[in-house]
Amino acid sequence: MIKRYLPILAWLPHYTPRLLGGDLLAGIIVTVMVIPQSLAYAILAGLPAVVGLYASLLPAVVYAMLGTSRSLAVGPVAIIALMTGAALSKVATPGSAAYVEAALVLALLSGLMLTAMGMLRLGFFANFLSHPVIGGFLSASGLLIAISQLSHLLGIEAGGYTALALIYSQLSHLDQTNLMTLAMGASTLLFLWATRRYGQHALTALGLPRGPASMLVRAGPVAAVVVTTLISWRWDLASRGVATVGQIPAGLPAFGLPAFELGLWHALLVPALLISVVGFVESISMAQMLAAKRRERVSPNQELIGLGGANLAAAVTAGMPVTGGLSRTVINQQSGARTPMAGLFAAIGIGVVTLALTPLLEHLPIATLAATITVAILTLVDIPLIRQTWRYSRSDFSALAVTMLLTLVEGVEAGIIAGVGLSIALFLYRTSRPHSAIVGRIPGSEHFRSITRHQVETVSHLALFRVDESLYFANARYLEDTLYTLVAQRPELSDVVLICSAVNLIDASALESLDAINARLKDSRVTLHLAEVKGPVMDRLKHSDFLDELTGRVFLSTYAAWTELRRTRD
Amino acid sequence: MIKRYLPILAWLPHYTPRLLGGDLLAGIIVTVMVIPQSLAYAILAGLPAVVGLYASLLPAVVYAMLGTSRSLAVGPVAIIALMTGAALSKVATPGSAAYVEAALVLALLSGLMLTAMGMLRLGFFANFLSHPVIGGFLSASGLLIAISQLSHLLGIEAGGYTALALIYSQLSHLDQTNLMTLAMGASTLLFLWATRRYGQHALTALGLPRGPASMLVRAGPVAAVVVTTLISWRWDLASRGVATVGQIPAGLPAFGLPAFELGLWHALLVPALLISVVGFVESISMAQMLAAKRRERVSPNQELIGLGGANLAAAVTAGMPVTGGLSRTVINQQSGARTPMAGLFAAIGIGVVTLALTPLLEHLPIATLAATITVAILTLVDIPLIRQTWRYSRSDFSALAVTMLLTLVEGVEAGIIAGVGLSIALFLYRTSRPHSAIVGRIPGSEHFRSITRHQVETVSHLALFRVDESLYFANARYLEDTLYTLVAQRPELSDVVLICSAVNLIDASALESLDAINARLKDSRVTLHLAEVKGPVMDRLKHSDFLDELTGRVFLSTYAAWTELRRTRD
Repeated sequence: MIKRYLPILAWLPHYTPRLLGGDLLAGIIVTVMVIPQSLAYAILAGLPAVVGLYASLLPAVVYAMLGTSRSLAVGPVAIIALMTGAALSKVATPGSAAYVEAALVLALLSGLMLTAMGMLRLGFFANFLSHPVIGGFLSASGLLIAISQLSHLLGIEAGGYTALALIYSQLSHLDQTNLMTLAMGASTLLFLWATRRYGQHALTALGLPRGPASMLVRAGPVAAVVVTTLISWRWDLASRGVATVGQIPAGLPAFGLPAFELGLWHALLVPALLISVVGFVESISMAQMLAAKRRERVSPNQELIGLGGANLAAAVTAGMPVTGGLSRTVINQQSGARTPMAGLFAAIGIGVVTLALTPLLEHLPIATLAATITVAILTLVDIPLIRQTWRYSRSDFSALAVTMLLTLVEGVEAGIIAGVGLSIALFLYRTSRPHSAIVGRIPGSEHFRSITRHQVETVSHLALFRVDESLYFANARYLEDTLYTLVAQRPELSDVVLICSAVNLIDASALESLDAINARLKDSRVTLHLAEVKGPVMDRLKHSDFLDELTGRVFLSTYAAWTELRRTRD
Repeated sequence: MIKRYLPILAWLPHYTPRLLGGDLLAGIIVTVMVIPQSLAYAILAGLPAVVGLYASLLPAVVYAMLGTSRSLAVGPVAIIALMTGAALSKVATPGSAAYVEAALVLALLSGLMLTAMGMLRLGFFANFLSHPVIGGFLSASGLLIAISQLSHLLGIEAGGYTALALIYSQLSHLDQTNLMTLAMGASTLLFLWATRRYGQHALTALGLPRGPASMLVRAGPVAAVVVTTLISWRWDLASRGVATVGQIPAGLPAFGLPAFELGLWHALLVPALLISVVGFVESISMAQMLAAKRRERVSPNQELIGLGGANLAAAVTAGMPVTGGLSRTVINQQSGARTPMAGLFAAIGIGVVTLALTPLLEHLPIATLAATITVAILTLVDIPLIRQTWRYSRSDFSALAVTMLLTLVEGVEAGIIAGVGLSIALFLYRTSRPHSAIVGRIPGSEHFRSITRHQVETVSHLALFRVDESLYFANARYLEDTLYTLVAQRPELSDVVLICSAVNLIDASALESLDAINARLKDSRVTLHLAEVKGPVMDRLKHSDFLDELTGRVFLSTYAAWTELRRTRD
């Protein structure tokens, strides 16, 4: 029982020195690799760079204890950083103490929501984000982040959280471009892009095995950070207007709860919910993919609790909202991590850096970080997915397109809300006109098939009407319309049998429609019968007055209704 | 063609003097009856009383030309007035010119939205409001309106648009109670309640036929208005602190477009949408009920255009949002209206009153109007519906309860949004775990049934898996989980057949899940086949790469899959 809520107890007792080697190496590699991106994502959210380090410490430790994935690495990630920035910029001025404080509130709310959803076993809700909506959202967010980094690459002050606002702000500050920053940023960008595009191929061509070659390519950003920091330090670029990370307060973050301020909490509720859901979906998708490869299992509800704990940890240690990150997880796994212990080692590593080595980061140019983000993030723009979705279904594509467009034009929150709303509306619309058929008997058998597609026996006073979908609020009225039209068209009709073989559910709205249909057919002297009602549906109907009011009978099979009702009027 | 958009052309040419009598009488009765409620609903919305009259003029004329219902009467109604007040109080101060102006913007937006929805044939969207949500919303709104009228009955100044705000505001002003107002209000309330409760019975007991008795009972509010106005005028109650309607500017409203102010329009978009949808649902439900009784038809999309036109008319003639009203329609119908001409006559009648007779209304006490509203509105509180829904389905009941609770506590908008959201979420949740079964062959036949409920033939290396629901984003993951578990539990498995006889739709998310299932089963050396894929679903699959990637085959029938795959490994 306790193992279910503390998955660490399931693997720690079996931990062997053999596992230690892989985990330790992975921990060290992850430490080095994720420091640049942690700083970069904090800056993306409009927060001081050090917040990214803080958010990679205790949250990772907590996730290692509560999470069910063996190799997921938790910390700041790009999309969540973007959403955090968009949310915070509405409630505080970037750079102010209130802004940093609001980030803690956001992490706290998100942590509480994730934990509560996990306890209530609501992991299911992530399914409401359909693939086209997630795809559209990630592509648009990737573009948005890339655009936002342009100002760092140009060395200008510009901001905003929609594509239009960003571009407008950048264009109007274009004259402030710092050429030194631009040169540094552009060459880093080119280097990283070339490494990613051709590095693997070049290194294997030089005779390096695939594994080490892949690791070396991934170390590209670290190389860029080291080289540009050295250049920036040697020629004191900061004095020539190149923005650098600057002095970072050494030492671990202070513990502390964010202040309670009702207005602020209320304003951050919806953003926190969206950050929680998006972060969870990103994280769980990756965790399940990794688990599938290794034939392990992750529990969505326990993952919610793990991520919730990580965000609560971020909230009390001066951090920012976190989730399982794609790039840091891939690095972790490819470096040979075998258990969550690797995450603990990485946290210790980053802790050591935060404690003692922050002066090394002082001269790191912001443009380098921007180039790192840009190259990483553009992989989110998934053109093949967009093309495939267009080819497969215009309806799914429209959900994708609306999500993309609104994310770019109105911002991340509007985009995701509209996408989810539209994909649900489209689904309801598709099921609101359920497939149905008038059926007749295949001569000499007990089978009934559609009269339009088969040669079947029918009787003029009897309509056998089969509906191929559950009956619920969105299609209840359609059922009414269809039956009324049927009765109006066939004045000789005296009996209608509604065949419910495909009806798994009749909700209260559909029940009311059935009541109305029954009453209206009665007025027209037509008797309504049911056939093939499933057990659970029948049980539920018995809790209503419908069966008492029903003018006709409930038949076990269509054949029983046929023999009975055909005979009646013969 | 033009008749479709101008339904008046369908009946006006056939208009006969025989119809004229009924319509004229109905027009006169409606004029007298609806004036008190028109004034009352304007006050409920926080607007000057005369706005209610203005909104009963041109909108009624426009609806008579564009609407498809023969006896629907359009004008201000209680729920819409409440929603209007709630929306306006967020953007302007009640009593200010900006408040009155904002009401016009609201009517204009609502008119544009309704018309657009009608043109786009989106009448369907009203189906998203399930019966429990509508029921819960109407009950809570009825309570809310009744509570809001208490301050008028007590003669105190109090306001708010949530139950808590209203009660708090009223309690804190309780010491200002005007005893004369209270006496007037309470006795009117008692009179109206008694008339409604016992009037019909008493009058028929006295020998009056049912029809006239019913009309007399309905004239109760008019009697109350006349008597209390006379009392108020004779003893000049206004000078003793009894609030009255006061001087109403005589004359017809001035034509004019509301000013365009981007911020205001933006702020009113969501309220206008909700008002449009709720107004349409209320109106169309009533129109359909009336049409059904007379075997006529109303067209939902043309009704949208009719109501849209009515609201646009309200916007340009100093009115407020309108829709088809329950009580005015019932009065209209029971007074003998045969065609929309009755609505035109009523509009002319109210026009005459507005032009010349407003001085008669000057001394009408507000408390009388409050009593009228209270008695009428409490019929919306539908206890039997609440009880039935509880008995039938806890899930539907929860949607009803959440809608009621939030409408009372957070206001009408929050209530309806939460109700719609919850009922959709509950439906998706119910379909997210579709019914499915492993089937086997009924010996000697070509039929396949669930292995848990029937004695059937099976083969150990072959699983025939039938899923009884369309595959879409909310259940895609569940399908993956179920199939992975199946394969994990039966290591001897070499072939899985997915029987799609009940699958009407595979959306892009489900397609991606099928891709994943196919790839994962391939890794486990299990071949995936499909069977009984419906024509449209198959057509769509051909627009994707899935069929090329599929490891197995697509069989026309389960029996074909059975004979083929059983033999393969024999």
